[in-house]
Amino acid sequence: MDSVFWAELPWPDVEQRVAAGAPVFLPVGATEQHGRHMALNVDAVIPTAICERVARSVGGLVAPTLAYGTRSQPRTGGGPGFPGTLNLTAGTFAMILRDVICDLHRQNVRRIVIVNGHYENIGPSIEGIELALDAIGRHRSEDLIILRFDHWELVRPETLDRIFPDGYPGIELEHASVLETSLMMALRPELVDLSRARHDGPAQFRPYDRYPRPPVEVPPSGVLSLTEGSSAEKGGWLLADVTVRMTEYVNEEFERGDKR
Amino acid sequence: MDSVFWAELPWPDVEQRVAAGAPVFLPVGATEQHGRHMALNVDAVIPTAICERVARSVGGLVAPTLAYGTRSQPRTGGGPGFPGTLNLTAGTFAMILRDVICDLHRQNVRRIVIVNGHYENIGPSIEGIELALDAIGRHRSEDLIILRFDHWELVRPETLDRIFPDGYPGIELEHASVLETSLMMALRPELVDLSRARHDGPAQFRPYDRYPRPPVEVPPSGVLSLTEGSSAEKGGWLLADVTVRMTEYVNEEFERGDKR
Amino acid sequence: MDSVFWAELPWPDVEQRVAAGAPVFLPVGATEQHGRHMALNVDAVIPTAICERVARSVGGLVAPTLAYGTRSQPRTGGGPGFPGTLNLTAGTFAMILRDVICDLHRQNVRRIVIVNGHYENIGPSIEGIELALDAIGRHRSEDLIILRFDHWELVRPETLDRIFPDGYPGIELEHASVLETSLMMALRPELVDLSRARHDGPAQFRPYDRYPRPPVEVPPSGVLSLTEGSSAEKGGWLLADVTVRMTEYVNEEFERGDKR
Amino acid sequence: MDSVFWAELPWPDVEQRVAAGAPVFLPVGATEQHGRHMALNVDAVIPTAICERVARSVGGLVAPTLAYGTRSQPRTGGGPGFPGTLNLTAGTFAMILRDVICDLHRQNVRRIVIVNGHYENIGPSIEGIELALDAIGRHRSEDLIILRFDHWELVRPETLDRIFPDGYPGIELEHASVLETSLMMALRPELVDLSRARHDGPAQFRPYDRYPRPPVEVPPSGVLSLTEGSSAEKGGWLLADVTVRMTEYVNEEFERGDKR
Amino acid sequence: MDSVFWAELPWPDVEQRVAAGAPVFLPVGATEQHGRHMALNVDAVIPTAICERVARSVGGLVAPTLAYGTRSQPRTGGGPGFPGTLNLTAGTFAMILRDVICDLHRQNVRRIVIVNGHYENIGPSIEGIELALDAIGRHRSEDLIILRFDHWELVRPETLDRIFPDGYPGIELEHASVLETSLMMALRPELVDLSRARHDGPAQFRPYDRYPRPPVEVPPSGVLSLTEGSSAEKGGWLLADVTVRMTEYVNEEFERGDKR
Amino acid sequence: MDSVFWAELPWPDVEQRVAAGAPVFLPVGATEQHGRHMALNVDAVIPTAICERVARSVGGLVAPTLAYGTRSQPRTGGGPGFPGTLNLTAGTFAMILRDVICDLHRQNVRRIVIVNGHYENIGPSIEGIELALDAIGRHRSEDLIILRFDHWELVRPETLDRIFPDGYPGIELEHASVLETSLMMALRPELVDLSRARHDGPAQFRPYDRYPRPPVEVPPSGVLSLTEGSSAEKGGWLLADVTVRMTEYVNEEFERGDKR
Repeated sequence: MDSVFWAELPWPDVEQRVAAGAPVFLPVGATEQHGRHMALNVDAVIPTAICERVARSVGGLVAPTLAYGTRSQPRTGGGPGFPGTLNLTAGTFAMILRDVICDLHRQNVRRIVIVNGHYENIGPSIEGIELALDAIGRHRSEDLIILRFDHWELVRPETLDRIFPDGYPGIELEHASVLETSLMMALRPELVDLSRARHDGPAQFRPYDRYPRPPVEVPPSGVLSLTEGSSAEKGGWLLADVTVRMTEYVNEEFERGDKR
Repeated sequence: MDSVFWAELPWPDVEQRVAAGAPVFLPVGATEQHGRHMALNVDAVIPTAICERVARSVGGLVAPTLAYGTRSQPRTGGGPGFPGTLNLTAGTFAMILRDVICDLHRQNVRRIVIVNGHYENIGPSIEGIELALDAIGRHRSEDLIILRFDHWELVRPETLDRIFPDGYPGIELEHASVLETSLMMALRPELVDLSRARHDGPAQFRPYDRYPRPPVEVPPSGVLSLTEGSSAEKGGWLLADVTVRMTEYVNEEFERGDKR
Repeated sequence: MDSVFWAELPWPDVEQRVAAGAPVFLPVGATEQHGRHMALNVDAVIPTAICERVARSVGGLVAPTLAYGTRSQPRTGGGPGFPGTLNLTAGTFAMILRDVICDLHRQNVRRIVIVNGHYENIGPSIEGIELALDAIGRHRSEDLIILRFDHWELVRPETLDRIFPDGYPGIELEHASVLETSLMMALRPELVDLSRARHDGPAQFRPYDRYPRPPVEVPPSGVLSLTEGSSAEKGGWLLADVTVRMTEYVNEEFERGDKR
Repeated sequence: MDSVFWAELPWPDVEQRVAAGAPVFLPVGATEQHGRHMALNVDAVIPTAICERVARSVGGLVAPTLAYGTRSQPRTGGGPGFPGTLNLTAGTFAMILRDVICDLHRQNVRRIVIVNGHYENIGPSIEGIELALDAIGRHRSEDLIILRFDHWELVRPETLDRIFPDGYPGIELEHASVLETSLMMALRPELVDLSRARHDGPAQFRPYDRYPRPPVEVPPSGVLSLTEGSSAEKGGWLLADVTVRMTEYVNEEFERGDKR
Repeated sequence: MDSVFWAELPWPDVEQRVAAGAPVFLPVGATEQHGRHMALNVDAVIPTAICERVARSVGGLVAPTLAYGTRSQPRTGGGPGFPGTLNLTAGTFAMILRDVICDLHRQNVRRIVIVNGHYENIGPSIEGIELALDAIGRHRSEDLIILRFDHWELVRPETLDRIFPDGYPGIELEHASVLETSLMMALRPELVDLSRARHDGPAQFRPYDRYPRPPVEVPPSGVLSLTEGSSAEKGGWLLADVTVRMTEYVNEEFERGDKR
Repeated sequence: MDSVFWAELPWPDVEQRVAAGAPVFLPVGATEQHGRHMALNVDAVIPTAICERVARSVGGLVAPTLAYGTRSQPRTGGGPGFPGTLNLTAGTFAMILRDVICDLHRQNVRRIVIVNGHYENIGPSIEGIELALDAIGRHRSEDLIILRFDHWELVRPETLDRIFPDGYPGIELEHASVLETSLMMALRPELVDLSRARHDGPAQFRPYDRYPRPPVEVPPSGVLSLTEGSSAEKGGWLLADVTVRMTEYVNEEFERGDKR
């Protein structure tokens, strides 16, 4: 029974690793449409895989993935109009994070890394962390460090240049497009079928949101940009970037720890 | 891309199956101590496996498992005193169910089966269903059917007699004991190591709860009853019972549907 | 003005008893159908009577009874289908307990005994206690002891054998049946009229819940088991069992107090 | 089994009376200091007694009394500084009302009368009603009428003149004073002991609130005005006023009903 | 950049004034109908103007005004039946106050003055303060003083006698009447047009509330009493009263500070 | 009494304009540090000014500005470390929007435009809209259109090129920098003092968040990018862009209305 996954260990093993100072990684994702050519679990698979790799290299543990994310929005994920997307409200999502962080803190975990794979989770993840700090008491949180990563921010510019020789369209439009497709081809190729991709993007969004009816600009496929040129090799480049850099940051933050 | 798991499909496949009336199974579990001899994911692994089997036989889909459960209690799961157990508050747990059920309903799912693997989830699962019905509007829920199973209630008495020739100690005490251990040996044998079991049960609980300090009666191992005699074969009997009977009930309920 | 009931005393008397270390008993019940032959207040009357007796013998006080309980469910109380049953949501119920416990703690009460008479209150009572401990701060709760009783768990096996020579059907099915009817005949005989009982039980429930429409298996009378053989004498046996044993447990817990 | 108290009836009796259009009265009170000379249950006893009388005269039913009220404030009830006062937060109180009203509405009650005995409950009672209407749906509430009374507003000016020949000090200062003391002497004389009254009022409050420490102006006894001159006879006058006038208003409102 | 308004200063100026012990004033109002002759912002304009004057005289700062108030009620503000009134729920209003007070406390503000201009805000303002104290921790609030004023309570009796030689009708009925109209004529004369006043008051309310349909007694104009005789001069008297007295109280409370 | 500000009108004027189909603009901002050279109200002043201009050109009304925003974060606004910033929790902020939208809908407003000036409000604004739609009922929202703008997204690329000949640093880093400073110089020049600017940016943020202690990368001034080159003239260009384009979008959306 050797695993970096918290839930695949018996409690005495978790106790021992926590006592040894293992940081705990929490992957937060979503179940959200990612085009006709990919499964709905993209936003959960990617951060889980990253957490697994970084936890392995820094001696950490990976808590169970949150597979339900905050309400998908048309301009960043296609929105609720697509079948298959399963949304939590922002309040529920934030409370899950609050509860999990508080419970990790209660059992003496003081190094927590939240790795997010779903754009709409950014705000509620921050709120969940803040609510946990409110609940723990900020005056009692001196020795606690929580880092929060959106994995796509760790891709190096030179890698983006290699992948997008004509210019990076930006993360919002990258939904279900080359970056995510390549990562999935590297991680779970059986969940990608490029032959089903319908090249109806990129989306030309108006610069505002519209409710309750979704705007007409979402491409029917749900792919906001393009899938052409996706490959497992490119996925490997991305994964390497994120893993290496996150490992560096985590090591640096947790080594200096309370000294900052 | 063929799977009974909702999140392993692209959205058009989910759309098509939902349109065809596929019932959706939602496994709800926990990350909770289950003795020195088993991983913490027992309560998530078992209902997920059951859902997978029943969904396959009735043409259903399995939504992502909730791997975080409601606060473990000493008399039924060892309680918060054990490292590794990760608890949600009852309110958060109920809101997750409310949100997921509402979102399934929004996309026209009308047959939902919640399969629970964690004793302390019973109440909050019911509350989550009730809150969803409150939110949807009971006058607008006429064509909706939600079934809620605690998997251990489907084991046939004759199977319990076979497994416990000296009498069944009851589900509360069965925590991390022969039933769950056998099921895990059948499903994920690599997560069980009987040689680590410490035979310090069964627990003799006083007939009341005590807060905030846990009562002294919880066995140090976290096993509330006994693990001796667990086997993958017995796990297979249990799995067969639950799968067969749940399939029958689901078919019967959803065939007669609105006619009741 | 001598009373064990907190609310029947002027404030200086409460102050004095609390200063003397009086434990505070909080009866939590429901307003729920209990068959055609009994009033709706069974789940409130019984724990109140028990609290009164135990408080008298241990020098305690009884806080006002919560007469509204958490949502009645078909398999354990008949469910919302019966007129007369008045339900709180689980969240509201838990918050009442949280507020009352916090306010008792604020005025230096450190010994609290919650006595429950309604099956569906179990989970939300636990949640209310946990929320109170969260609000007080677990690090500030060292000298606080909260005990939580479901009164039926204190009946001695020998008494059940005397009452049910053919075997005890279990507490869930006991709703509005011999135990509760006998207790009411001992406590409030004017609220029982056995001649109105309709012997349509015991219920044969399927091993799962069904929403939103209640399952067909609830007997029309609302009595889940049987009322035949109920008597005030048997009620007296039950009351004696529960009172004696609760007094013992309370004395034992509160004597050793912080020493555990 | 004849009673105006909802909870003292079996469910078929409640069903029948509700079907006959019986209005349901909900007494809401508090457990709050009322001077050295009276029990803490004044605010619960008085509205319950009024509801009982009016329900009897109009063929109504009385739901179980809410014995816990919203946070007592120094200028209107002595505030949290007095031992014995047990407070709910405003949010919890409002949710109780919301839940009870929704559940009454669910079982076809369309005439609800809330009778309040605790000054600080006014706002949260209104909020509870509004939340219930939000939950039911205002477009679905056309045939529902909810009346909300603060009992002291029904005392006739001529009765106040009789009781206070030197001028009425106003309801806020009347806390635990002549009106409430007289009513309790009429209703529950065993819970009043005028010999214990300490004549340290009336309070001279500054025209503002101060937190978190209570202002110094609260008289040590907790009586905000005066108790001298209280009598059961005066209590009878007050009770007669309120009962007669509430009966008239209820009859008038519910007769014309939807016609307004 | 010299201003008493917190939000009109750069952060270093706020930092400096807070360090110097400046009390912070928080005006809380509403957007609510105030008759045909006045703008909807009366309840926000008046407390803001008072805060500005008192802050100037005591060296304080004025935080941004809450322009949305708690649900207007028919007997005290016309109720939701009038177009233009924008209501928050009581829970939302209380949480705003909780959040703002907690955030002021976090940045070392220890003297807070809440000045209210809307009758229905009284209860939720108190709740917001109490929730903030709950969140901060009452044991950590020793050096914090929060004062809460309803501005109309500071008008001197002799001024009321001058304005109402025939007797003061009481604050509830004063809604949109002589007091508020005169204050607005003194503060924002361009937002008052007496020629549009319709003299259809004073309202003769029944002594109870009625839901969901508003009672018929609200005068069509929304003026609960009378506007005749309003003048800027009278507004000046009122403003002087409130400003002078609030300044005195604030000085007195904050000078003696923790010594009480 | 002519104004585009909802709260500066008497209720009959609001009623009339709403009946005529006036869209309602809701400016949402914050009270947040914006460098040593500007007041804290930047995020409230700018959207209010934009709403005023657009409302005037399309015949709309401007509801009272929300001057308190969601928790400022280090990477986008300096974070809670700066004195003067006053934060609401995300939950409170979302509930304000929910309440205001529901109340506008209740009084028949069917065209709502939310204009946001604070980066951290994006998520909670969306959540507030979604919660309002949940509360209203999506099946009852067919004729409702809500548009949500972040004002900086409407600046034309050619204007950014003119202002930033060396390239636009992106909106996150633009906090308190040239765009906001120029807009404030155009709108409220008395609240800007460029001589106080400390040129310590631009910030070089690490690509992740860190809690509870703010990261060291925030420039001491709170200006995330640069203020050099700010001017009222540039502010005028920006204001023109946003006003013209928002007017076009609003007209287009609300003309075609339900036809989309």
